[in-house]
Amino acid sequence: MAITLYELAGADPDRRFSPFCWRIRLALEHKGLPFEGRPWRFTEKDAIAFARSDKVPVLVDGDRTVADSSAIAAYLEAAYPDRPSLFGGGAGEALTRFTVGWTDLVLHGALVPLILLDVHRHLDEPDRRYFRESREARFGTSLEAVCPDPDAQLASFRRALSPVRATLRGQPFLGGAAPLYADFVVMGAFLWARGVSPLGLLPDDDPVAGWRARMLERLSDEARRLTAG
Amino acid sequence: MAITLYELAGADPDRRFSPFCWRIRLALEHKGLPFEGRPWRFTEKDAIAFARSDKVPVLVDGDRTVADSSAIAAYLEAAYPDRPSLFGGGAGEALTRFTVGWTDLVLHGALVPLILLDVHRHLDEPDRRYFRESREARFGTSLEAVCPDPDAQLASFRRALSPVRATLRGQPFLGGAAPLYADFVVMGAFLWARGVSPLGLLPDDDPVAGWRARMLERLSDEARRLTAG
Repeated sequence: MAITLYELAGADPDRRFSPFCWRIRLALEHKGLPFEGRPWRFTEKDAIAFARSDKVPVLVDGDRTVADSSAIAAYLEAAYPDRPSLFGGGAGEALTRFTVGWTDLVLHGALVPLILLDVHRHLDEPDRRYFRESREARFGTSLEAVCPDPDAQLASFRRALSPVRATLRGQPFLGGAAPLYADFVVMGAFLWARGVSPLGLLPDDDPVAGWRARMLERLSDEARRLTAG
Repeated sequence: MAITLYELAGADPDRRFSPFCWRIRLALEHKGLPFEGRPWRFTEKDAIAFARSDKVPVLVDGDRTVADSSAIAAYLEAAYPDRPSLFGGGAGEALTRFTVGWTDLVLHGALVPLILLDVHRHLDEPDRRYFRESREARFGTSLEAVCPDPDAQLASFRRALSPVRATLRGQPFLGGAAPLYADFVVMGAFLWARGVSPLGLLPDDDPVAGWRARMLERLSDEARRLTAG
């Protein structure tokens, strides 16, 4: 049964950067499930209308279609219980939701201002217009004005990572001795930045940088090809 | 085998408010383990020197002595595997550490300025001197100057709870359908405040307030007696 993952792409179809799509790519690799990652752009709403969603990731697995990264992760765990687990059991699945909420609301919130213009720069022309209009409406200001003090914003991003840092002082991954979906969720933010921005988000001696390096080492060649560097 | 838990107390020995001690009291109740909670004060270092710790909680279980809330929780899980689990398995135990790190660094950080003077007010005389000296050294200012704008600080505390709020919109407890240690860790912060402060930390319609009410309902009469009405 063929699996297809619709993933956000830039003008270059091999530049994939959505943090939510990365969560699922990493989850599929973790479960060892072969799949095709199909590039999709913000303005190609028609191409995913069949999934009753206007956003990616969208996963098609045979005759099943699932939208939304959290719903897709839950689907994969239920549909492929004999493959390596994303959550390590029901309690792990429930506990992971806090890390997801924190990443969505706190970590992404601290990262977005730093990379918003970089994302814009990587989009194709129709997506650039869409992105500028929708994001300027969301932030109530021009893309260029969202981050008036990048140094302070970078310091704030690094401070926001304090609970990840504290956890990684005691264990190599958020999931413990090996990564779980919680790791993929936080790593999604770093792959989002890596796909578009030259910014050095972390000093080398940060335990979070060590974890990021361990996560990068585990990427498949295919995944590595779809991010920068 | 008798279990004793040394817990921080105010001038009134029945006023227990340490968030770290509450984590363990809730964990012991969760596991259904009978224990004696022994009041201890900041300046009674000699009374816990046998545990090679100068802080509570300290747990004595027969001939075993364990200090530090995280170490105690891990000990209880390993020593009483047939009792209700605190983590729901190894992955859950690893994933819980992120919630612990977040609570220690972010939630407590946002709460402390709001209740520092209330804590001071509830201590006995020797502890008041100790608390003022140690906390003024830590904050680099007088206790009275730590929170110049309580309204802004309260707003900041409520904003900090956004990942808890997001999680509780989808499930009744951080641990899922029933509470786990992650719930006890976050609840420790609310019981800390409840033990000393009249401040209304949450509006009634906040999903976090609903969760806090569910957690309070589950407290034993003994635990309820040791916090404020």
